[in-house]
Amino acid sequence: MNRRGNCIIGQSGGPTAAINASLSGVLQGILENDLYSNVYGMVNGIEGLLQGKYLDLSAKFQTKEELDRLTHTPSMYLGSCRFKLPTCEHSEVVYRDLFRFFEAHNIKTVFYIGGNDSMDTVLKLSDYAKAHHYDVNVIGIPKTIDNDLPITDHTPGFGSAAKFVATSLLEIAHDTYIYNIPSVTIVEIMGRNAGWLTAAAALARNSYSMAPDLIYLPEAVFDKERFIEDVKAIKEKRKNVIIAVSEGIKDSEGQYISASTSAVDSFGHKQLCGVGKTLENLLKAELGCKVRSIELNVLQRAGGHIASLTDLEEAVMIGKTAATLGAQGETAKMICYKRLQNSPYQVETFAYDIHSIANGEKTVPLEWINETQNDVTSDLIDYLMPLIQGEVSLSFTSGIPNYCNIDHLFTPGYFKEHK
Amino acid sequence: MNRRGNCIIGQSGGPTAAINASLSGVLQGILENDLYSNVYGMVNGIEGLLQGKYLDLSAKFQTKEELDRLTHTPSMYLGSCRFKLPTCEHSEVVYRDLFRFFEAHNIKTVFYIGGNDSMDTVLKLSDYAKAHHYDVNVIGIPKTIDNDLPITDHTPGFGSAAKFVATSLLEIAHDTYIYNIPSVTIVEIMGRNAGWLTAAAALARNSYSMAPDLIYLPEAVFDKERFIEDVKAIKEKRKNVIIAVSEGIKDSEGQYISASTSAVDSFGHKQLCGVGKTLENLLKAELGCKVRSIELNVLQRAGGHIASLTDLEEAVMIGKTAATLGAQGETAKMICYKRLQNSPYQVETFAYDIHSIANGEKTVPLEWINETQNDVTSDLIDYLMPLIQGEVSLSFTSGIPNYCNIDHLFTPGYFKEHK
Repeated sequence: MNRRGNCIIGQSGGPTAAINASLSGVLQGILENDLYSNVYGMVNGIEGLLQGKYLDLSAKFQTKEELDRLTHTPSMYLGSCRFKLPTCEHSEVVYRDLFRFFEAHNIKTVFYIGGNDSMDTVLKLSDYAKAHHYDVNVIGIPKTIDNDLPITDHTPGFGSAAKFVATSLLEIAHDTYIYNIPSVTIVEIMGRNAGWLTAAAALARNSYSMAPDLIYLPEAVFDKERFIEDVKAIKEKRKNVIIAVSEGIKDSEGQYISASTSAVDSFGHKQLCGVGKTLENLLKAELGCKVRSIELNVLQRAGGHIASLTDLEEAVMIGKTAATLGAQGETAKMICYKRLQNSPYQVETFAYDIHSIANGEKTVPLEWINETQNDVTSDLIDYLMPLIQGEVSLSFTSGIPNYCNIDHLFTPGYFKEHK
Repeated sequence: MNRRGNCIIGQSGGPTAAINASLSGVLQGILENDLYSNVYGMVNGIEGLLQGKYLDLSAKFQTKEELDRLTHTPSMYLGSCRFKLPTCEHSEVVYRDLFRFFEAHNIKTVFYIGGNDSMDTVLKLSDYAKAHHYDVNVIGIPKTIDNDLPITDHTPGFGSAAKFVATSLLEIAHDTYIYNIPSVTIVEIMGRNAGWLTAAAALARNSYSMAPDLIYLPEAVFDKERFIEDVKAIKEKRKNVIIAVSEGIKDSEGQYISASTSAVDSFGHKQLCGVGKTLENLLKAELGCKVRSIELNVLQRAGGHIASLTDLEEAVMIGKTAATLGAQGETAKMICYKRLQNSPYQVETFAYDIHSIANGEKTVPLEWINETQNDVTSDLIDYLMPLIQGEVSLSFTSGIPNYCNIDHLFTPGYFKEHK
C-alpha cells in the first residue's frame, strides 16, 4: 500500500458512544500503515465543510494515549450535522465546491461516519466522483444506536447504548422492588421505527429480576386496550410491573402514541409529552395505583462511561478496515460487520455496495417478537447478548471522565484561519 | 468488646448507591470483631418488621466476595418503607410489638439506616427504650442523596449521586455541542428542598466545557422573568445553553414551579409535567429556538455503576463505626462525618445526639449561592469536589452489573416461615 495524498473524515447524524472509536480506528489504521500524508477532519460534517470548517487531525492525534482518549469519548469529536446533500441535478454548485476543496487539498479519500442519511451522502459523493472522473474515493462507516442499517450484522454505537439500557433497567428494578406497594414503572427508550434498542432492555433480566415484564417495539401495532390487559395480568402475579417501551410505538392507523397527547399548560403553552408520560397518565386513570415513567433520554446515546468494550473494539476495527480499503482505492462502499459465529462470538468486516444500503432501513423481524407482541424471543436475545459484553476502563480527572477536549466545536472564530 | 446478644438492621427512605455499603460496613464491623451472635435484617424497614418480615443476615453474608457485592449493589438490599412511626402516646401497641420482638430474639442493638424520617424512628425507639428501661440501644446511620441531614459534614449516598449528575452533565454537554444550531438544554435534578445535588452539576465543568451555564437551587427564589433574561444573556455569548435546575425550585410565594403546570391531555387525563418540561415550554415560547429538557430521574440515585469510590468507602467506614459503638452500648446517636481537612481530603466519624438531628434539615447556605442566584460559589465547589473522587470496579455478568440477588423482596410467601 502506498501513501496516496491526503484524506478527510467527517461525522454526521446523532451521537453514539462509539462514533469516535471509529474515527480513532481510521486514524490508527492510517498511522500504523502510513497510508496518507495529511488527515483532515470536517467540522460539523459535510455541512460544516461547505462553510469552510475543517481541522488538521494528523497534528492532533499522534500518541496512543490521545487515540485511546478519542476512542472512549462519546458523541462526535468533529461535530455533526443534519444535512441532506441535495441531488446533483438540483444543486451542482454544492458538488463543485466540495470537489474543488478536495482537489485543492489533494484529498484522495473521503471517510464519512454516520447513519442512514450519512450513507446517502456517501452514495451521492461517490456517484458524482465517478460520473465526473474525480480521483476521489468515498467510504462509509456505519454508526447508529438504532441498529437499523441494512446488510451489516449490527452497527457501531448500538452495543454501548444497549449496555446503558440494560444496566439502567436493572438499576431501575433495584430502585423499584424495594417498596412493598404495587407500582408500575414505564421506561421510554429511543428508536422511532426500529425497536432494537428497546429490545435490549430484555438483557437486564437475570436470575432474580424479570424486569422488564413487558416490552413494546414499534414494529408491532400498539393497542391501548391490550396494553392495559397486559399490565393487569402481570399485576396479578407481581406487585411491581416494569415496562420497556419504544418512543416510536404506533396505533393501528400508524399514529404515534406520543403524538396523541396534546394539552395546554397554565402558562398557555402546548405540552408535548413523550410516550412514557402518555402511558403513565393512561395507566394512572385505569389502574389507580402508583405509576411513574422514566425517559432514558440522551444519556443512552452519550453514556461513554458505561460503553460496551465489544462495541468500542469493533468500532476501532471497522475504522481500521475503512482506512485500509480507502487507501486501496475502494469506493462507494460501506464497511459492514459479518457475524461468523455466536458462541464464541466472532465478527469480521467486509465492504458492501453503498447503493444497496443507503436509504434502506432494517427493523426487528416480526418473528423475533413474541406472539402476544409484548416481549422479544430468545433468538433476539441471543443476537443481542454478545454486543454488550465487556467494560471499558476510562480515565477520570477530578471525578469525571477524562474525555477529549472539544472546544473547537464552540469557540467562535476558531476556524477563521482555515477558511 | 464483648458479644452482647443479637442485633437487627433496617433500611428506610429513598434509594442511594451507598446505603448497602453502610449495611455491608455494619456486617464487616460485626464479623471482624465478633460483636453479636446473630444479625437480623428487617425487610421493608420498621413497617415490614411490624408485619413479621425479617431475615437472618449472618447466614447470608459470610465471605469477602459477598460483602463486596453488597457494598456495590445500589438501592436497599433489605427493602424500604415510607413509614412515620406514630408517637408512643398515639399508639403504644406498636412499640410494645417491636420491643416484644426484640426481647424474644435477644436483640440488644437496632441499627437503622436512612434519612430524615428514619432518624425520627431512631429517636422514638431510643426514647421508648430509655423510658421503659429496655436493654436495647438504637443507632442511626445516615443516607440520603439530598445531603440534607444536619451535623454530619455530608451523607453517604450523596457523593455517588453527585458523581452520576456531574458525569451525566458532561456527557450531555458532549451530546449538545456537536450541533451548529442554537439550543437550550434543561437538566432536572432531584432535591425538593435542598439544592446540594443540583449544585453538584457544577462539577461537570472542565477545561473546555462550562456546562452547566446556569444553576438554579431551591434555596433561592426562582423568578421567571429573571430566568428568561439569564438564558438570553448566555445565548448572546454561546450557541448552546445548558441549565441545571432543581426539581424543587419555587416562586416568591413559595409555590413549586412544576406545580404551576396543570393541563389535560386528549385522553382527558391530567398532565403533571416536571419543572424541566415546564421551563422547556416556557423557553420555547419565549426564545423560539430548540429547547429540550432531560430528567435524570431515578437513575441518579440508583446508578451503582458510576458510584463514587470515596462515598462507598466512607459508607463502609460509617457502618463499621456504628457496629463498634452499637456493641459498646451507645444509643440515641447518629454516626456523622467530620471533615478534618479538604486538601488532602480527610474525614473521620463521630456519634452525635439524635435529638439534635432528627427532623432537622440542612439546606445550601445562601452565601454559597452567587449574587445573581443562578450559579454556585467556588466555596461550594471546594466542598463538593472530594466527595465524587474515585471509581468503583464492579464485576459484570452477561454484560450487566453483578448486583446482590434481591428476590427476597418480591417472592410471595418468602417470609411466612419467619412470621
